[in-house]
Amino acid sequence: MKSANSAAEPLRGLSAFPLTPIADHRVDETAYARIVGRLAAARVDTITALGSTGSYAYLTRAERARVAALAVEHAGATPVVVGIGALRTEHVLEHAADAEAAGAAALLLAPMTYQALTADDVYGLFDDVTSAVSLPVILYDNPGTTHFAFTEELYAAIARLPRVTSIKIPALPADSAAAADRVQRLRQVLPAHVTIGVSGDASAATGLSAGCDAWYSVIAGTLPEPALAITRAAQAGRADEAAALSARLAPLWELFAEHGSLRVTAAIAEHLDLARPYCLPLPIKGLGDADRRRVARVVEELGLGR
Amino acid sequence: MKSANSAAEPLRGLSAFPLTPIADHRVDETAYARIVGRLAAARVDTITALGSTGSYAYLTRAERARVAALAVEHAGATPVVVGIGALRTEHVLEHAADAEAAGAAALLLAPMTYQALTADDVYGLFDDVTSAVSLPVILYDNPGTTHFAFTEELYAAIARLPRVTSIKIPALPADSAAAADRVQRLRQVLPAHVTIGVSGDASAATGLSAGCDAWYSVIAGTLPEPALAITRAAQAGRADEAAALSARLAPLWELFAEHGSLRVTAAIAEHLDLARPYCLPLPIKGLGDADRRRVARVVEELGLGR
Repeated sequence: MKSANSAAEPLRGLSAFPLTPIADHRVDETAYARIVGRLAAARVDTITALGSTGSYAYLTRAERARVAALAVEHAGATPVVVGIGALRTEHVLEHAADAEAAGAAALLLAPMTYQALTADDVYGLFDDVTSAVSLPVILYDNPGTTHFAFTEELYAAIARLPRVTSIKIPALPADSAAAADRVQRLRQVLPAHVTIGVSGDASAATGLSAGCDAWYSVIAGTLPEPALAITRAAQAGRADEAAALSARLAPLWELFAEHGSLRVTAAIAEHLDLARPYCLPLPIKGLGDADRRRVARVVEELGLGR
Repeated sequence: MKSANSAAEPLRGLSAFPLTPIADHRVDETAYARIVGRLAAARVDTITALGSTGSYAYLTRAERARVAALAVEHAGATPVVVGIGALRTEHVLEHAADAEAAGAAALLLAPMTYQALTADDVYGLFDDVTSAVSLPVILYDNPGTTHFAFTEELYAAIARLPRVTSIKIPALPADSAAAADRVQRLRQVLPAHVTIGVSGDASAATGLSAGCDAWYSVIAGTLPEPALAITRAAQAGRADEAAALSARLAPLWELFAEHGSLRVTAAIAEHLDLARPYCLPLPIKGLGDADRRRVARVVEELGLGR
């Protein structure tokens, strides 16, 4: 087990979000270990186990503890972030304790909702959790799945809590000036030590070039190389190259926009034999046959299957 | 344990949805048993344990099994419906088996989401569940919490599955002609044996008078008498009386509209000493002090605390 300090420094660069493939209604541990090992071998900066892409919301406490341990085991020297979100604060604290015991380097927390939460509820959640844990915490803003809308004011309040180290923001505007404005505005309300990580893979090149410190990436969890190429170009200040590398993946981003990144990424992993067919947790069936063929065609045409 | 057949007939009349009060981070079993006993004594037609009002989404499998058993034990002769929803189909099936073992009369199933579900996913969920259970199943359409939008076409497809017995629809239009139109349209697409139950307490009088067979009621889970009075008036064809009884509760419906029915109902239960303070599962803090005082004032002014 690695030291829990290995990513106590701010979270920067490319964080790859692996799928947690299901087979026969159980976590496919062999496939998961292989996927995580590939990410470490590709030298992504961090691996985020049990993100939305890793189906954290669908797994039991025992499954999540096991997945966290497998991720740390197969990530080698790469720091592992673990998603700890749950509908109930009690359960979030249990997941945090399990992640800490597994050797996680940091924790990712989204305010899951069933009943709508108020800003005060969400602040209370982060207050309760950051008071109870010893690892860095990433605020995970994913309105498409949580249906909770953060304000800049709430970002700022939570970012002042101890141990809050990074904010995973939703997709940025496609226009690079508008994206830079948004990142600038966030910088003004956030403490200097809190990193900003972009998600929404299609807007990552824009986001990194606009000053985001990290890319919390769905696609990198299954296809790390093209995501790394974009990240390294942007980090080196080669914004045009990063934009061109991202533009080359436009057919993929179109599929993401149409079907959501999870179903498309699962179809890619299944096409590449990284996961068994229908690897998402039911009731999510994943793409239909025609769309799976389209995904396979895009993967082959872009040379992503090599 | 009662026979599982006690509500195999279609679900009609008033179904009361009790809170599942939390105290010290655990289900307050004493308070829950008392709440359920009050509903049975008031002679509601059915009691729905573990609805959204019963915080089903926040409880563990063991807690839910225990709550279902307590509800059946304290409901006496009143049939108990049990909510079985979960994000993952495997877990829904576990909850269904537990509810059946507890002596439930019927099962209530909402398509919970984290990742958005397609119509095909949701149909598959109901297909998988109705194939596996022996009890009647109520389709629970609660877009405010599930963020899933049913179409009439999907209602109709699911209603043709075996064991689907009732549909819990969201609030109807306030205008009685528009409400009647909507119920008529639903009748045309649903099999004759499937009952329609209105939710959205403020629109229940309108809904029952517009031809709904049942009222799936939040307020009846804590204040059964005023809900029974509305139901019995509407069932006897006294639409004006039902409407007047509902209109009298307007200050309550305003609070529901402002804060959601769950937080207001929890504050009522706390005010009436049916639950300990802060009885909702964290991170849901419930109403602030000023709003709690307003709720208490409304309860007293309407004579609901007697």
